[in-house]
Amino acid sequence: MKEALVLAETAYAAGEIPVGAIVVKNGEIIGRGYNLREKNKSAVSHAEIIAIEEACKRLGGWRLSDCTLYVTLEPCPMCAGAIVNSRIKRVVFGCKDSVAGCCGSIINLNCYPFNHAFVISDGVCEDECKSLLKKFFEQRRRK
Amino acid sequence: MKEALVLAETAYAAGEIPVGAIVVKNGEIIGRGYNLREKNKSAVSHAEIIAIEEACKRLGGWRLSDCTLYVTLEPCPMCAGAIVNSRIKRVVFGCKDSVAGCCGSIINLNCYPFNHAFVISDGVCEDECKSLLKKFFEQRRRK
Repeated sequence: MKEALVLAETAYAAGEIPVGAIVVKNGEIIGRGYNLREKNKSAVSHAEIIAIEEACKRLGGWRLSDCTLYVTLEPCPMCAGAIVNSRIKRVVFGCKDSVAGCCGSIINLNCYPFNHAFVISDGVCEDECKSLLKKFFEQRRRK
Repeated sequence: MKEALVLAETAYAAGEIPVGAIVVKNGEIIGRGYNLREKNKSAVSHAEIIAIEEACKRLGGWRLSDCTLYVTLEPCPMCAGAIVNSRIKRVVFGCKDSVAGCCGSIINLNCYPFNHAFVISDGVCEDECKSLLKKFFEQRRRK
């Protein structure tokens, strides 16, 4: 999660909502991403999507079956859906997202009969993940 | 929807699950996509994601507020989430997806308090959309 936090800080420095994500397989990072919605001018450029795409490219296939995704913020419906689609085994996230979270906050995709379910661990480095987001939104409000 | 069906046929010819999508603004097609999961070796390469990315690029921003997405198959959680994230106004789809559909089949994202909801119309060219998928899966089973 410390690696994901470094990526979130990179997003922060770029003026993006600070969220970072990594995909890990057998202890090795095979995908990295941070939110690039503004720079890429794309609704799809969330940290998790970028990390998943890089991991798929690295492994040469769309299945990330034995992988863990670490992300600083609870995944939104799009990213939680990408986790289902890529068959990621486990998701570890930092802080909850009361606006869009799909690993328990608004809904939990695992509670529905999709063709894949994943293990969820939350609250890892929660304070650091949350305070970075808080700092970003406070600064944005001041502008 | 006829345009989306042409894209679905292109996916079929490429050996991909035949799904096609377009994004329309003011009567003009600003994004096109068809499923490329196998060719791109990416869990993210669904028709809707590719069409939304192209539309964002075309408009130069992540908001597709006054746009309609036409897609031959009911969107999965990832794609329905991308529709929420891009603020697409209306979604028109062909046939339902009993395995992953998030516009009414498994869940309907609009029933939850996300920060955007979209209008849904279904059953447009349903038979053509469904029979193309049926043909694909029958052929795959035979192999």
